[in-house]
Amino acid sequence: MTAQASKGVKLLLPRWLITMTPGSPVLEQHALAMEGERIAAVLPREEALQRYADAERVELPHHVLIPGLINAHTHSAMSLLRGVADDLALMDWLNNHIWPLERQWVSEDWVYQGSMLSAAEAIRGGVTYLNDMYFFPTAMARAAVDSGLRAGVSINVIDFPTGYAANAQDYIQKGLAAYEQFKGESLLDWTSAPHAPYTVSDDTFTQLRELAEKYDLQVHCHIHETQDEIDGSVKQYGMRPLERLDKLGLLNERMIAVHMVHLSPQEIELIAAKGVHLVHNPSSNLKLASGIAPVKALEAAGVNTVLGTDGAASNNRQDMFTEIRAAALLAKGSTGDPLTVSARTALEMATVRAAKAMGRAHDLGTLEAGKQADVVAVSLEALECQPVYHADAQLAYVAGREHVTDVWVAGRQLLKNRTNTSIDTVSLMGRVQDIVAKMRAGR
Amino acid sequence: MTAQASKGVKLLLPRWLITMTPGSPVLEQHALAMEGERIAAVLPREEALQRYADAERVELPHHVLIPGLINAHTHSAMSLLRGVADDLALMDWLNNHIWPLERQWVSEDWVYQGSMLSAAEAIRGGVTYLNDMYFFPTAMARAAVDSGLRAGVSINVIDFPTGYAANAQDYIQKGLAAYEQFKGESLLDWTSAPHAPYTVSDDTFTQLRELAEKYDLQVHCHIHETQDEIDGSVKQYGMRPLERLDKLGLLNERMIAVHMVHLSPQEIELIAAKGVHLVHNPSSNLKLASGIAPVKALEAAGVNTVLGTDGAASNNRQDMFTEIRAAALLAKGSTGDPLTVSARTALEMATVRAAKAMGRAHDLGTLEAGKQADVVAVSLEALECQPVYHADAQLAYVAGREHVTDVWVAGRQLLKNRTNTSIDTVSLMGRVQDIVAKMRAGR
Repeated sequence: MTAQASKGVKLLLPRWLITMTPGSPVLEQHALAMEGERIAAVLPREEALQRYADAERVELPHHVLIPGLINAHTHSAMSLLRGVADDLALMDWLNNHIWPLERQWVSEDWVYQGSMLSAAEAIRGGVTYLNDMYFFPTAMARAAVDSGLRAGVSINVIDFPTGYAANAQDYIQKGLAAYEQFKGESLLDWTSAPHAPYTVSDDTFTQLRELAEKYDLQVHCHIHETQDEIDGSVKQYGMRPLERLDKLGLLNERMIAVHMVHLSPQEIELIAAKGVHLVHNPSSNLKLASGIAPVKALEAAGVNTVLGTDGAASNNRQDMFTEIRAAALLAKGSTGDPLTVSARTALEMATVRAAKAMGRAHDLGTLEAGKQADVVAVSLEALECQPVYHADAQLAYVAGREHVTDVWVAGRQLLKNRTNTSIDTVSLMGRVQDIVAKMRAGR
Repeated sequence: MTAQASKGVKLLLPRWLITMTPGSPVLEQHALAMEGERIAAVLPREEALQRYADAERVELPHHVLIPGLINAHTHSAMSLLRGVADDLALMDWLNNHIWPLERQWVSEDWVYQGSMLSAAEAIRGGVTYLNDMYFFPTAMARAAVDSGLRAGVSINVIDFPTGYAANAQDYIQKGLAAYEQFKGESLLDWTSAPHAPYTVSDDTFTQLRELAEKYDLQVHCHIHETQDEIDGSVKQYGMRPLERLDKLGLLNERMIAVHMVHLSPQEIELIAAKGVHLVHNPSSNLKLASGIAPVKALEAAGVNTVLGTDGAASNNRQDMFTEIRAAALLAKGSTGDPLTVSARTALEMATVRAAKAMGRAHDLGTLEAGKQADVVAVSLEALECQPVYHADAQLAYVAGREHVTDVWVAGRQLLKNRTNTSIDTVSLMGRVQDIVAKMRAGR
């Protein structure tokens, strides 16, 4: 084999490599070649060293290489409210803590700084894609572009006035203006994002469905999070939220349905048939006492279930390793079936499946030639990660986000030996402290 | 106030200090004075600087100081089997993987090296006390003494032959010989440890009850882990295991009952009345699909519920921070009650309550003058731990074991700025790799 021109190629040489292509084995003695923003090849180590003889080499002798993790649901800016109010009933928490704080404080700058904090946390934890839903989407868009992180940014609508927008038309206009402003940015996807069935009218849902079709966007919506939401819908609309959304034409492959804790067997069949993607948020659903999503039944029905953290106000730890482990454990413990949601399945929920949910199956979610170089190295050298019998199970059941050492997004290195390279974290933390000091002082 | 003679006193000066005395606030601007193996005082910072003017000062400007965490149930040596077999049905896992490996490999040296690995992991994760149950208790005892960690060591009996002992009498003799050998060691407690109702006969249970009374020991036993165990007992003994143990006189304040996943309301009343301590192992119970212990009902009944990891074969991550968070979240999500098991309650389960379970309420579990100086500093400086509104909730819901920086047991520092000071971890890991290489090669 002759050496190719390999200037500008970076060769990652890990101990283990998991492409996350379903059914693929854990590879050893393999390399990943990165060129520009894409993966050039995944190939045996010796072959790689010959073919890319002039490439820059990155030896990762204790590491597993995996595709970047995709956090399929969060509210990034809410990192500023991390731990502000815990151990409360949902409506007390929302009405007396979260919503008043948001009304008082949320602004373009507040959202930007909070989103930067979440971006830094994501990168340090092996997350290369945040699917966000929040006010002031231009702020999230800037935070993603400035940090080099990939993001799903929301054209977000909630049918009541906030400091961000006055009414549905105002939300949509502002969201579309943000979309137009950033539409050349390759790191960004945009979603049409009705907040939830209990906060969005039929008319607004229809407009957001049409908007998604016109601009070819995924739809990002909280659905069936609590039993109260369902009871309220039955009272107000004479039907459960999912039935209502189906009648409004929203249940299809564009739909990223978040939470879905409470589902009848018929509803599971329905969303499976319609190709709806489901974001399971195990920690948030437990902490807010919403319940436990029926993931075993969803798996049996073939629903594309993926994982999210939810925002830091309801899941104070924005950590996809925790959610991967929780998804695998909770499905087993809540059903009595130790064979459901294996380590590998849980890892797929955070990678290849999540890419599909975001409409990016073609170029994200696995380590394959031609895909975007969103790559994460996790070191299993620490004694708490030893011994290693199966690297995939070790990632799901043992490793934590603190074992992530290096992260690349679109070929750009954002974390190097655990140091953020794209964000000045010292000055960011100064700005965060200033905001929090103002909030504490109530001014 | 005049300065006392304060040579030999160490003054820890944290940002926050939580004594874990039930109902106590998070203290700020406070100090902990350590003298020899004991806590001399917890007092306001300025007063401490005057009173102990000559003391060595340890500034901990971003840290929370808490009592050392107590892992109330594990099988330390099984760290060597971490991840060897996952995602299997319980009996397949035990019969075809764990038990054959144990039969082939378990020896005094194997248990010692595995226990040292667990000791190093514990110390790095803020755990100062491991309540262990395993074969070759002399090996666990040596590992604790050699590492400086506190441990509950088991006089362990299982009514079938293993590589360790031939029959119940042999187990008891060996356990008692170990007890006699180490009985002067202040870091060790000993437990009378019948493995479980399904592996121990009435006669052996009675002997172990008498042994506990004679030597004034706690009793450490797996109980009601699975529905199968209960069904088997009903078939074999005509009663559920708890009823059987009650008839045998084992339900009292000596009993540390592990798992207790499946409990009737009457059984909860019974153990509350008898003062039985219950070790909740949320991760292990989920992963093995045993179920979810009724912690909300246990709290309502006033049972002293504490936390454990279980062994690394069933909970690959020996991390009490994970168990604290899981206990708080799972109790909420499985009952729909967001007010059950607050952050503080979950922290108490791993400290003050656990000390009571071990029969050590008088000198462990809280930061109070006169108690043993088992102290842990957790830094909340990392950006993923910011901002901090409530330091106690931040420990339960945000911080991970990786944020533990410094650990003292009986006044001796075992972790200093995240480095193990009492264990040569490099040579330990070499010995672990050697053992694993032999196991992989099957020889």
